Amino acid sequence: MANGIIPLNELISQFERLPGIGKKTAQRLAFSILEQPPEVAEKFAEALVNARRKIHFCGVCQGLTDKEVCDICADTRRDRSVICVVAEPRDVMAFERTREFAGVYHVLHGVISPLDGITPDRLRIKELMARLSDSEIKEIIMATNPTVEGEATASYLSRLIKPMGIKVTRLAYGIPVGGDLEYADEFTLARALEGRNEI
Amino acid sequence: MANGIIPLNELISQFERLPGIGKKTAQRLAFSILEQPPEVAEKFAEALVNARRKIHFCGVCQGLTDKEVCDICADTRRDRSVICVVAEPRDVMAFERTREFAGVYHVLHGVISPLDGITPDRLRIKELMARLSDSEIKEIIMATNPTVEGEATASYLSRLIKPMGIKVTRLAYGIPVGGDLEYADEFTLARALEGRNEI
Repeated sequence: MANGIIPLNELISQFERLPGIGKKTAQRLAFSILEQPPEVAEKFAEALVNARRKIHFCGVCQGLTDKEVCDICADTRRDRSVICVVAEPRDVMAFERTREFAGVYHVLHGVISPLDGITPDRLRIKELMARLSDSEIKEIIMATNPTVEGEATASYLSRLIKPMGIKVTRLAYGIPVGGDLEYADEFTLARALEGRNEI
Repeated sequence: MANGIIPLNELISQFERLPGIGKKTAQRLAFSILEQPPEVAEKFAEALVNARRKIHFCGVCQGLTDKEVCDICADTRRDRSVICVVAEPRDVMAFERTREFAGVYHVLHGVISPLDGITPDRLRIKELMARLSDSEIKEIIMATNPTVEGEATASYLSRLIKPMGIKVTRLAYGIPVGGDLEYADEFTLARALEGRNEI
């Protein structure tokens, strides 16, 4: 394709493996690397290897960190009595951006999806249950995605946790802030109606 | 931002430096690297460094190659009497995809743009002129972009080359194949009219 230049083809195909990057974009990105000084490619390469090598899962919440325990779990100002359970490490970042949540997290690293071979034992559920033996814990917020699998995972965990006398909550459904009612699907609208609040 | 995980922030910012990659996409790409086995990051890193180190400009056409002379210039079946002059290495790939051009190329590595400090001496024009001393050369196709700078570069080169008795041509302007007349701008449409052919 790239005129038979093997190292260029190899770089293009590495970019193409990234999610959401098609053939044309991969080519554009590869060329941009070649157009810049060698240091740019070297620093990028270093960042890739470094990130992959140094980042692992937090011993407590299973989120990403380059330390033994992540900054959130180590922060004594966070409220350890509330655990927000998410599917992926990037969901932690999404909540952190809101600056509204002062509790801690637990990352499952996926959702239950029997069709994809993801059974509960493949997720970080054991680690969550171990944390719950701490009597300090008052509430578990299920913050998995509003999909079939996300819902199933939330109910599965709720059934495990509720008998322990811990409150389990779920994120509210409704219309997105700044969204247009016209474009809201009927399920979202129905849930928004159902969960309406007095003003 | 990324919960203070420095190697993650560094990887995100490396992705963000790529053209057309915004903050959100950079985050998504960085997470996708962390979600995969370490070999993925290592191979990507290797491809980056390898491509940047091994690929340089062809001694003849100034296009990209990992050899001394690129495969196109070395191919004896190509017609060396016709040189297609392009601005960037990626333009060579675009022409090669058409499978319609049997001649050879010359890559200028930019277009004349005094406002950006790109004067003719910054481009690979000297190398082009050196090639033209070969009496075999019959035609130079100016295939720079249809922009002000691309046009200026084409006319500049045309004025240099024509006195040598070599034919200089320019890509045809017109409506894009599969395009909709309604969306063609007035300049394109005027040029398409001007260049109309009998059928």
